[in-house]
Amino acid sequence: MKLYDCTPAPSPKRVRMFIHEKSLEVEKIQIDLMSGQQRTDDFKKINPWSTVPVLELEDGTTISEISACCRYIEEMHPNPPLLGKNPKEKAVIEMWNQHMEMDGFMAAVDVFRNSAKGFASRAKAGPNNYEQIPALADRASQQLTDFFDLLNQRLGDNKFIVGDDFSVADITAFVTIEFAKWSKITPSNEVHNNLKRWFDEINERPSSKA
Amino acid sequence: MKLYDCTPAPSPKRVRMFIHEKSLEVEKIQIDLMSGQQRTDDFKKINPWSTVPVLELEDGTTISEISACCRYIEEMHPNPPLLGKNPKEKAVIEMWNQHMEMDGFMAAVDVFRNSAKGFASRAKAGPNNYEQIPALADRASQQLTDFFDLLNQRLGDNKFIVGDDFSVADITAFVTIEFAKWSKITPSNEVHNNLKRWFDEINERPSSKA
Repeated sequence: MKLYDCTPAPSPKRVRMFIHEKSLEVEKIQIDLMSGQQRTDDFKKINPWSTVPVLELEDGTTISEISACCRYIEEMHPNPPLLGKNPKEKAVIEMWNQHMEMDGFMAAVDVFRNSAKGFASRAKAGPNNYEQIPALADRASQQLTDFFDLLNQRLGDNKFIVGDDFSVADITAFVTIEFAKWSKITPSNEVHNNLKRWFDEINERPSSKA
Repeated sequence: MKLYDCTPAPSPKRVRMFIHEKSLEVEKIQIDLMSGQQRTDDFKKINPWSTVPVLELEDGTTISEISACCRYIEEMHPNPPLLGKNPKEKAVIEMWNQHMEMDGFMAAVDVFRNSAKGFASRAKAGPNNYEQIPALADRASQQLTDFFDLLNQRLGDNKFIVGDDFSVADITAFVTIEFAKWSKITPSNEVHNNLKRWFDEINERPSSKA
């Protein structure tokens, strides 16, 4: 198993954290996103969508998309479980992770890609060019503030996003907060004190540096 | 198991199709989205995010988010498999379904919610109000055209989205095409002939009327 990776980028970090929590060693191949290596013909043979992370299996099958990489790893290496141990847990974790993804991570992506100078015409990852929309960066920035409020409320009653156990939802939320900082959007240390407690705890886990 | 549902809406239809393909009978409770029933205090006790579908389990646990509802059903009722039979299949289906979701369904959502008259300040589903962005409706409309091209290419070599077997990815793509039609965006019968062949086949399945 190999991981096509780019150390500074948030999306592959989510899979690296997942792998680290499983105590697995995986060969990593760096793809230079800043120079556009993901859009070369060579890389498109690995992933026609021109994104990382990509997991390459022993038989050569290539799996793009974060959730799909995590699914494969969890199925092959169930312990410790990061996607749930039984049907109900799996559904509850999927529900929370979906909110971390759509209300949090995708909002951080929209802010960054619709405002960063180097991303003109690259407002969406992938093979197609789409123009930036400044109003979307503003709206997504409001979404992130609402997301911090949601997390702060949730983490007042819960050790982790889904209760007593660390899960993929914590990884998605943690990397979202790191990534939002690229756009200078951060939780408030005064208002979001539960969120700060949780963030500091996750930040102590070795996987947070993966 | 109960499903909080709204017959005309595309999101709950994806779960109804999934349930139908499993030959399950589930009690359905209609929530009137047009009158705003999803935003009442009573419904927020069931789902604080004010969305349908929601699956209510025997023990009273409520599961929102389409992918989480499907996960629970698949884990409890594995046959016929719609999320894959083994780790590799599960990952490949998750990868393709994620593309159907992000490149297709979410684009159809963005077109509709950022342009429909009744959705001023309701550009995102959920508890928070966000303003419509007309430029986003235009950009997402271009995404849908690119999505039709992608599907048409894929379905030239494959019976279903992920090869020989019907999967959740077909449900996501099929409902996306139905939903895009609300915004008068449709594949071309001349250009997208593989897509048309596949759509007509899915449209013959009893689940397509669920």
